Amino acid sequence: MLMMSMTPLQKNRLSYPLEVPKILSDLNRITFKEGQKTSAQKDALAIQKHFPRTYGRPIMKPAKKETNASSKVLKVGVVLSGGQAAGGHNVIIGLFDALKKDHKKSHLFGFLNGPIGILEGKYVDLAEKQLSFYRNQGGFDLIGSGRTKIETKEQFSKALQVIETLDLDGLVIIGGDDSNTNAAFLAEYLLEHHCKTAVVGVPKTIDGDLKNDHVAISFGFDTACRTYSEMIGNIARDALSAKKYTHFIKLMGRSASHIALECALQTQPNYTLIGEEVAKKRQSLKEITEDLADLIKKRTLSGKNYGVILIPEGLIEFISEMKNLIEELNALLATKKDPVEHLGSSAKETLTFLPKHIQKQLLLDRDPHGNVQVSHIQTETLLSHLVRERLKREKGDKTFNPVHHFFGYEGRAGFPSHFDATYCYSLGMLSALLIRERLSGYMSCIQGLEKPPLEWEIYALPMTSFMNIEIRKGKEKPVIQKALVNLDGKLFKRFEKEREKWKLEDHYRYLGPIQFDRDFSWGDQTPLSLVN
Amino acid sequence: MLMMSMTPLQKNRLSYPLEVPKILSDLNRITFKEGQKTSAQKDALAIQKHFPRTYGRPIMKPAKKETNASSKVLKVGVVLSGGQAAGGHNVIIGLFDALKKDHKKSHLFGFLNGPIGILEGKYVDLAEKQLSFYRNQGGFDLIGSGRTKIETKEQFSKALQVIETLDLDGLVIIGGDDSNTNAAFLAEYLLEHHCKTAVVGVPKTIDGDLKNDHVAISFGFDTACRTYSEMIGNIARDALSAKKYTHFIKLMGRSASHIALECALQTQPNYTLIGEEVAKKRQSLKEITEDLADLIKKRTLSGKNYGVILIPEGLIEFISEMKNLIEELNALLATKKDPVEHLGSSAKETLTFLPKHIQKQLLLDRDPHGNVQVSHIQTETLLSHLVRERLKREKGDKTFNPVHHFFGYEGRAGFPSHFDATYCYSLGMLSALLIRERLSGYMSCIQGLEKPPLEWEIYALPMTSFMNIEIRKGKEKPVIQKALVNLDGKLFKRFEKEREKWKLEDHYRYLGPIQFDRDFSWGDQTPLSLVN
Repeated sequence: MLMMSMTPLQKNRLSYPLEVPKILSDLNRITFKEGQKTSAQKDALAIQKHFPRTYGRPIMKPAKKETNASSKVLKVGVVLSGGQAAGGHNVIIGLFDALKKDHKKSHLFGFLNGPIGILEGKYVDLAEKQLSFYRNQGGFDLIGSGRTKIETKEQFSKALQVIETLDLDGLVIIGGDDSNTNAAFLAEYLLEHHCKTAVVGVPKTIDGDLKNDHVAISFGFDTACRTYSEMIGNIARDALSAKKYTHFIKLMGRSASHIALECALQTQPNYTLIGEEVAKKRQSLKEITEDLADLIKKRTLSGKNYGVILIPEGLIEFISEMKNLIEELNALLATKKDPVEHLGSSAKETLTFLPKHIQKQLLLDRDPHGNVQVSHIQTETLLSHLVRERLKREKGDKTFNPVHHFFGYEGRAGFPSHFDATYCYSLGMLSALLIRERLSGYMSCIQGLEKPPLEWEIYALPMTSFMNIEIRKGKEKPVIQKALVNLDGKLFKRFEKEREKWKLEDHYRYLGPIQFDRDFSWGDQTPLSLVN
Repeated sequence: MLMMSMTPLQKNRLSYPLEVPKILSDLNRITFKEGQKTSAQKDALAIQKHFPRTYGRPIMKPAKKETNASSKVLKVGVVLSGGQAAGGHNVIIGLFDALKKDHKKSHLFGFLNGPIGILEGKYVDLAEKQLSFYRNQGGFDLIGSGRTKIETKEQFSKALQVIETLDLDGLVIIGGDDSNTNAAFLAEYLLEHHCKTAVVGVPKTIDGDLKNDHVAISFGFDTACRTYSEMIGNIARDALSAKKYTHFIKLMGRSASHIALECALQTQPNYTLIGEEVAKKRQSLKEITEDLADLIKKRTLSGKNYGVILIPEGLIEFISEMKNLIEELNALLATKKDPVEHLGSSAKETLTFLPKHIQKQLLLDRDPHGNVQVSHIQTETLLSHLVRERLKREKGDKTFNPVHHFFGYEGRAGFPSHFDATYCYSLGMLSALLIRERLSGYMSCIQGLEKPPLEWEIYALPMTSFMNIEIRKGKEKPVIQKALVNLDGKLFKRFEKEREKWKLEDHYRYLGPIQFDRDFSWGDQTPLSLVN
């Protein structure tokens, strides 16, 4: 990449000074002390069995040292795993800067295109010059990412071989729940094989579902939500001006509705579906349709033939009748020629409620295992179709003009927000410390993110403490538990309290494009989801 | 709207100081002098017949007066017409500020929800307090917009009545080519009826197709293109990181491909279709498919299973075989039971090339006049479908994962860019001057936009000079000619020269979110399309 082909903002971001937690300003004076012992999220005994060497260890907290630690030459690998999230480059650069600060002969190897780079031994020896083009930039393109998993015996053994050949002191895995689960297994495996390499995890995912009492948020979530909120706000202002379209906006996030909730509070649309609430209330597709049609009828009565509705990408999977239908279909499709005939009456009713083309799609469109492809259902058009049918019954569809949007990819690889840029750089620096301390199987964590960066508190948390046992492909497996929206949490309660007035009155909020060079208060720069 | 519910950026933009052309700093010392006489874009004689009172007048250029002009109490109306474009509020506020500066007893009436507000006599008497919440803000929601046209005798007479009741000195119509055509007719009509009200036009449209030798650009184009380019850049960086998706991105703009061209030069995607070029080269859908499939095959061969392709919304209407097919179908659908049987062989071939569901749609989905609904064809999915079919023939579709996007509404109502905010405010101030000078049937124009605002040159151009005769609904009508992409212009030539290397190498440019508070050079803040 040449400087001359860069945009003004790209260049400008390269030299932007970041604040880091105060304690990270003198890396040689930090040591770690044992805090409270940890257990697992659930199923502690089973988790312990899977992780005899790394289970139950204490939280590690930093302490100031009186004398300088001696510098160490370290060789470290880093890998990006899974979907893009803004700030990934800053994790790598923070890690690099901290390693080089400690000893300029240290090396950072970037494995290429995700964990497959480890298996194939494909990497680059990262150098300052190259990294200088990636400071505060979006994307994962410095070394690429990928979804290959290190899971089988052969893969573990191959990884060990590559890691030993490179003589790595540490391996930093930047990923979501799945990737960090695998990181935990790799840490255990390497210890078992007396390999010195410390495996350290960094919490990444725009979905925001990798969090718990100790990890307030994963990186990338803030930038994604701000980018989507910019667009939602623009669309809301357009709707309010044109007064004729109802916008159905689907937002990325399959397993949890954190993004929809954050964007709802940022932009105050007329209606937002939260998957977790739909599941808890056991709302059917019909009930959801009724609610939406009711909203649209009421708005029309008050002269408002427009509106903005947010839909989480994973909604369908939260609707129990749909889940049941799909499970029944999957079972029947494998064995019966006319699966519809064999559906239970409730499943059949659900199927009939769907538009014809979706029925067809469910029956014909299958994945390589012969299963129905839920992810191919366009929830935003499905809902607007059902709403139109409902409105038709009372001839209320004449003024209903739906417009559909899906925001996903545009929020994963943009310039990281102030928050993500700073958070990521600090996480990277912290990861270098954890490797120096040989804290294998730990995750880099930062607390107090609602305060300005100088006041952030760093620590390390055993990855096993995130885990529970879940059934995957029919087998019990220790995995990091995905964090769903907490319906009893402060954030959802605030949403619940405010949303009624957003329905008929319009309280749209216009966040606008992310600003980088402004003295907005830190509170305005942090995601609302930090309070949970 | 309450300040407390506003976002930090909203508040921040309210008090942002704008520069204006130097000459506008002292409104009382400006007079206008006659420049060269104007004619029409084409069909001058016919235009003159339609506009006996307003045709052929000179360009009006400002001159410095030695003594202050006396202040005048003016009553002025303003209306927003057609689709949203960022900066509309600033036109109104510039107009308001200039009127009030001249005489604080002047009034500005905002007609509500577009030209229908004039017909129904619905307006608000705009006040400083209310306007203070709209400075540098996006949207048209202060007074709303609409697409009603003032066209019939009854409508003109009704408009005259409302205008005379309000005793307006001027009426500012903020709109695109259609709205300004109607403004020209209204100006002529009012003069014919000895009404004192001066009608002044302001060039608005994100599509960028309202321009000529004198008007370099319409407002809203810059913000729209920057917003789309932010998203395209984010997606390109995501594509480059994930290395597995081909993104088909459709961009708003039906009649011309200015937006696609501007975004292409800003973001440098792998391929961009320009409607005007497709028409000139008489490219068929099959040829376009071949070109795209060829690109994807070549990229795959060099290990790049990803890409970014830009498509103008109006593409279909530039493909002559498709235009022919649709015309034949429309004629046959009215008279024949089995129109497909009666299609000419070339049209039949075109139809058969289309995917089944599009064929069905063309035959079944009709507008109220019984015509095929071209606008319902999703060009981005149509193209990716055809490309997949083409790739299948050589089993090259295995690694082809298309993702579709449409960017339109999100670019029309966001916070106006520096350029649009400044341009619009100046256009508003200038409009007040034209009304003071009773320059009815003129459009507010600014030249030298590539230079910093202080150096901009203001002037006024007769709206009739934009016109030519076109067939509308079977009748000859004087209309403002839509400006298409100039295939011989500098901008397209630059694109043509550079695009080859964007195909296989990746030269994506990441514009990032619009920044408001930065000392980027003016050249970086202006649309590339200014050079045309």
